[in-house]
Amino acid sequence: MTAFKPSKILGTAALASLLIALPALGQDAEIVEEAVTETLSEGVSADVVFILNSFIMILGGILVMWMAAGFSMLEAGLVRKKNVSMQLVKNVGLFSLAAIAYYLIGYNLMYPLGNWTIGSDETGGYVGAFGIAILEAVGITADGADDFGYAATSSDFFFQVMFCATTASIVSGTLAERIKLVPFMIFVFVLTAFIYPIQASWKWGGGFLDAMGFLDFAGSTVVHSVGGWAALAGAILLGARAGKFNPDGTVNPMPGSNMALATLGTFILWMGWFGFNGASQLAMGSVGDVADVGRIMANTNAGAAGGALAAMILTTMIYKKTDLTFVLNGALAGLVAVTAEPLTPGLGTAAIIGAVGGVIVVVTVPLLDKLKIDDVVGAIPVHLFAGIWGTIAVIFTNPDANLGAQLLSIVVVGVFVFVASFIVWAILKATMGLRPSEDDEALGLDKAEIGVEAYPEF
Amino acid sequence: MTAFKPSKILGTAALASLLIALPALGQDAEIVEEAVTETLSEGVSADVVFILNSFIMILGGILVMWMAAGFSMLEAGLVRKKNVSMQLVKNVGLFSLAAIAYYLIGYNLMYPLGNWTIGSDETGGYVGAFGIAILEAVGITADGADDFGYAATSSDFFFQVMFCATTASIVSGTLAERIKLVPFMIFVFVLTAFIYPIQASWKWGGGFLDAMGFLDFAGSTVVHSVGGWAALAGAILLGARAGKFNPDGTVNPMPGSNMALATLGTFILWMGWFGFNGASQLAMGSVGDVADVGRIMANTNAGAAGGALAAMILTTMIYKKTDLTFVLNGALAGLVAVTAEPLTPGLGTAAIIGAVGGVIVVVTVPLLDKLKIDDVVGAIPVHLFAGIWGTIAVIFTNPDANLGAQLLSIVVVGVFVFVASFIVWAILKATMGLRPSEDDEALGLDKAEIGVEAYPEF
Amino acid sequence: MTAFKPSKILGTAALASLLIALPALGQDAEIVEEAVTETLSEGVSADVVFILNSFIMILGGILVMWMAAGFSMLEAGLVRKKNVSMQLVKNVGLFSLAAIAYYLIGYNLMYPLGNWTIGSDETGGYVGAFGIAILEAVGITADGADDFGYAATSSDFFFQVMFCATTASIVSGTLAERIKLVPFMIFVFVLTAFIYPIQASWKWGGGFLDAMGFLDFAGSTVVHSVGGWAALAGAILLGARAGKFNPDGTVNPMPGSNMALATLGTFILWMGWFGFNGASQLAMGSVGDVADVGRIMANTNAGAAGGALAAMILTTMIYKKTDLTFVLNGALAGLVAVTAEPLTPGLGTAAIIGAVGGVIVVVTVPLLDKLKIDDVVGAIPVHLFAGIWGTIAVIFTNPDANLGAQLLSIVVVGVFVFVASFIVWAILKATMGLRPSEDDEALGLDKAEIGVEAYPEF
Repeated sequence: MTAFKPSKILGTAALASLLIALPALGQDAEIVEEAVTETLSEGVSADVVFILNSFIMILGGILVMWMAAGFSMLEAGLVRKKNVSMQLVKNVGLFSLAAIAYYLIGYNLMYPLGNWTIGSDETGGYVGAFGIAILEAVGITADGADDFGYAATSSDFFFQVMFCATTASIVSGTLAERIKLVPFMIFVFVLTAFIYPIQASWKWGGGFLDAMGFLDFAGSTVVHSVGGWAALAGAILLGARAGKFNPDGTVNPMPGSNMALATLGTFILWMGWFGFNGASQLAMGSVGDVADVGRIMANTNAGAAGGALAAMILTTMIYKKTDLTFVLNGALAGLVAVTAEPLTPGLGTAAIIGAVGGVIVVVTVPLLDKLKIDDVVGAIPVHLFAGIWGTIAVIFTNPDANLGAQLLSIVVVGVFVFVASFIVWAILKATMGLRPSEDDEALGLDKAEIGVEAYPEF
Repeated sequence: MTAFKPSKILGTAALASLLIALPALGQDAEIVEEAVTETLSEGVSADVVFILNSFIMILGGILVMWMAAGFSMLEAGLVRKKNVSMQLVKNVGLFSLAAIAYYLIGYNLMYPLGNWTIGSDETGGYVGAFGIAILEAVGITADGADDFGYAATSSDFFFQVMFCATTASIVSGTLAERIKLVPFMIFVFVLTAFIYPIQASWKWGGGFLDAMGFLDFAGSTVVHSVGGWAALAGAILLGARAGKFNPDGTVNPMPGSNMALATLGTFILWMGWFGFNGASQLAMGSVGDVADVGRIMANTNAGAAGGALAAMILTTMIYKKTDLTFVLNGALAGLVAVTAEPLTPGLGTAAIIGAVGGVIVVVTVPLLDKLKIDDVVGAIPVHLFAGIWGTIAVIFTNPDANLGAQLLSIVVVGVFVFVASFIVWAILKATMGLRPSEDDEALGLDKAEIGVEAYPEF
Repeated sequence: MTAFKPSKILGTAALASLLIALPALGQDAEIVEEAVTETLSEGVSADVVFILNSFIMILGGILVMWMAAGFSMLEAGLVRKKNVSMQLVKNVGLFSLAAIAYYLIGYNLMYPLGNWTIGSDETGGYVGAFGIAILEAVGITADGADDFGYAATSSDFFFQVMFCATTASIVSGTLAERIKLVPFMIFVFVLTAFIYPIQASWKWGGGFLDAMGFLDFAGSTVVHSVGGWAALAGAILLGARAGKFNPDGTVNPMPGSNMALATLGTFILWMGWFGFNGASQLAMGSVGDVADVGRIMANTNAGAAGGALAAMILTTMIYKKTDLTFVLNGALAGLVAVTAEPLTPGLGTAAIIGAVGGVIVVVTVPLLDKLKIDDVVGAIPVHLFAGIWGTIAVIFTNPDANLGAQLLSIVVVGVFVFVASFIVWAILKATMGLRPSEDDEALGLDKAEIGVEAYPEF
């Protein structure tokens, strides 16, 4: 995400000519006239900048909220019929819980605004500040704004809370069909209240990774890989679905129950990603910012297209069939890959970055199977592996990036999130248990825990 | 909804310093320079205010239109397989008919602009003006605007026509599976041409409820309870679905056919609600207005989250299962509850207001069953009961609210809408009949009236 | 689409009074004060115009992208169960491929910016320029903008690439259930790289149809009929689905598998159309432009409503059942019909134009059956026939339109697209073949080519 640049408020040239012209007042009215008109016709007032910056984040928040519906449909489509209602409850529940956890704890852990609980601005912080999120009062004027040079706090909170929820959505898919609702929800609370915000503050809160020069525009690492690491830790401790892997090493395919829903979910995510990446410009109050938002949109689309096509071609070549699930995950991997840097690439480069993401999915899904890690929807290849790729790929198009900072940040975030998640999952496993009984798993979680079948008449 | 405040166009401080500085022209050029620059960099021109106000309503209209899709999917998911196509036809049909009825009659009944047919601005009006909606000419300038201090009439109409349609959508769900298409459509016409606009004019058209101090920001009462009352009147006259209630007082559950669709519908409604509540600020042309829009968005999300979580926890405690339909209706009730005042609460309060909405749904759904009122999708608890709660809850956070005006308005609107709806339903029942034959109901309305089964191969 | 009008940047009256007042500087400070304040409070600076113009196209691009999901759901709902995954792959694939083809070739063919490869600005051009799309650099200022009086190139590209993809989506539906994936994708490439952009440049690139006075605001002809003609050519060469038409001339109905999805797709398209038509104003930086955008939104909604209601009434009268598929296609035909001129009609006229579109669908669907042209989703009636109607209907409300230019353009575009498409389809048929084997068609394309069934447990 890019910081707001106050120098853009008024066209420098116009302002300069105004300053020159005004002392001449009375001598040459025409110069004044010209200067005033030029300034009027070129500048963007600070109020308008504030309004447009706030607005693009509000719009972004709406679109990223919509991604929760996308994950929900994608996952409902990729699980078996008997676990669909559970997956839907989990998705509505995690999104709701993330909203509360981020309000109560996460937001200030992530954006400590100088008040780091551990560390400091000088030394680089490690844990943000504790305190609930408080929005600006109703009907503020410029003087009452928390950060008039940026945007309304409400718009910032609304946008960021959605990113936090996205992380939890990623976890949900991997662990489908064999986790109990209550431990899952408890993990979501810890993830969205603590794990996600703390590591996000290292980059977006101005912490030590940011100070080191780590670049991650909209969160290939900060959001997507975090969801992936948390999911991976859970998948290892949880184990595979009953019957997924045979003792002889072969895999029993457990095809998703509704490909139309899965495709709808992918399109929803694709659409929502325009908010995810585009609004991460965090500014739309200047010519350059709106043109950049447009670039990001076009590049995001190109990345998704590249990922989908690459997966489509590769899967057709390997399997002689054009596996729809790979095409969908290819598009998503393309989106994840282009998320770390959707601004600086050209359209062709963005498509290629996305295409590599698509290839990664096709290659690594069988790899996870070999490791007997059961990732029901393919979230680890899509969000973790393509997220790592995208984070590295920043160095190809952004001259400010350096490979060292990118790699170190990938490792630091990865170790922190994986270890923290593993500990939480392990505690939950040891105390209340993560898995339903074998009977409940065989029966389906909809009957066992939800009491509402998704398709009772079918 | 809040009125536009013209004093916000230019920063008062900046304007004042300009007024002081200008007479000194020639004596002290620096003061002038400063004044002009300050004004330039702080103000928002009236044109830009008009543009941004109009735009937020256009965006709101798009999002509220999307709620029609949400109701459609929610209802298609909650009815049985044999009545899905009918429910879809009803939803597309009612949305289309509402657009025409509101254009022909409703808009001017609702916003009489001083020309009340019965009553007047002084005495408080009772029925708006008769006449079709007429938009401003193509390519107007400021002089040609109907209300330059507010927004384009086209944007206002586009936003308001969607609210009117929402009311009709609410009715559709309650009466599902046992009403004929033609009488339903006739009722929709009366509701959207007359009943909704007349009572809405009492508040939003500046009528007597508004004059009394009734506060209802985006319509917990004016929209949601209206749909609920109209649905309740219909449900009483229509009776329950065949086989729903046993003579011994027990209830036969008739589970919805597609929980994935119902969840999708809920997410769509959640998303659309950002337009419903956020754009009801009716302004985005100042620092305060955009920050308020952001507040509303964040609060709306918190309200939905609170409703979903409360229903989730309560239903799990009561039934030992986490019933998905309650979770969905809990989220919707949270949204309805926070709609009467999404601006003044803090995030925590908004979540609590929403949570109470969620509790109301869990508690009142069985109550309706006891009264043998068959509300197929739970629209009466969600839109009527949570709407009443939300309207009352305004007094907890908005110092301008008074309990008397809120309660009286709830009663006045309720009596008017319930009685008017009851009369219309009764006339339709007496003339053409409301219910299909018993055979048709048993066969399913898709085969009986639509001729297209929703899932013919399943 | 309308050109940007620079004269709107500053209110003419305000500017004039400023010019008059300034020479009087020193004599009468009050006049100056008034003039400056008036200018400040009325104008829109060129930067803000650029930002708002760019933004409305970015928003439009997001909404038109969403239409790809709409087509996908509509088609997935209207094909039989055994071909759903194929239809989904085709829709994700075509959208992705269109993004790449338009970037590589199409964009510059369509907007040659004076560098026509064949023809010239003076003579009227026939083929645009060859070259990939290149966006403006990151963080441009006004000086660095390609066209500061219009909008960011990135926003323009993002908006236009979505229109190109829409054309391909239309083709997909008609040819469903009996075309192989690879030839379909090759056709999509030719359509989006060459056929669509070349003819679009004749109007929107400033080519000879534009010079002739042809009016097509958002593309009833340029987009929708183009998809229809390409689909028609394909349908003729491809032939009907096995078993669709009996030797005795009767038709075997092959009902769609999922009406809920088809309805969802229709609502998605309806919503996306607000971007399609509304953002085709290409400007939101003045009072007139935003009011026009609002008009377009309201008219687009009225057109859809008119189409749905007309189809609803007519189909009920003819068949005694309210066929849902006709209601959906009626709404879409209404949208297509109002697309050529969504700005100049009043609300009532827009509804009537849409209603005629709905009637056209009900009347022409059986006609295609008689001609034994198998159009699986009804895309030819909706997009081609209603598109022609809408293009002609421009003359009823826009005084700048003339029937001759409209008719000639319909014919020119039709002949070009039909012939070009026919040749491409014929080559594909002669070389790799268009149809799967009879066995594969009977088995279903999901098993034959995709390897993933859409609903494996149902």
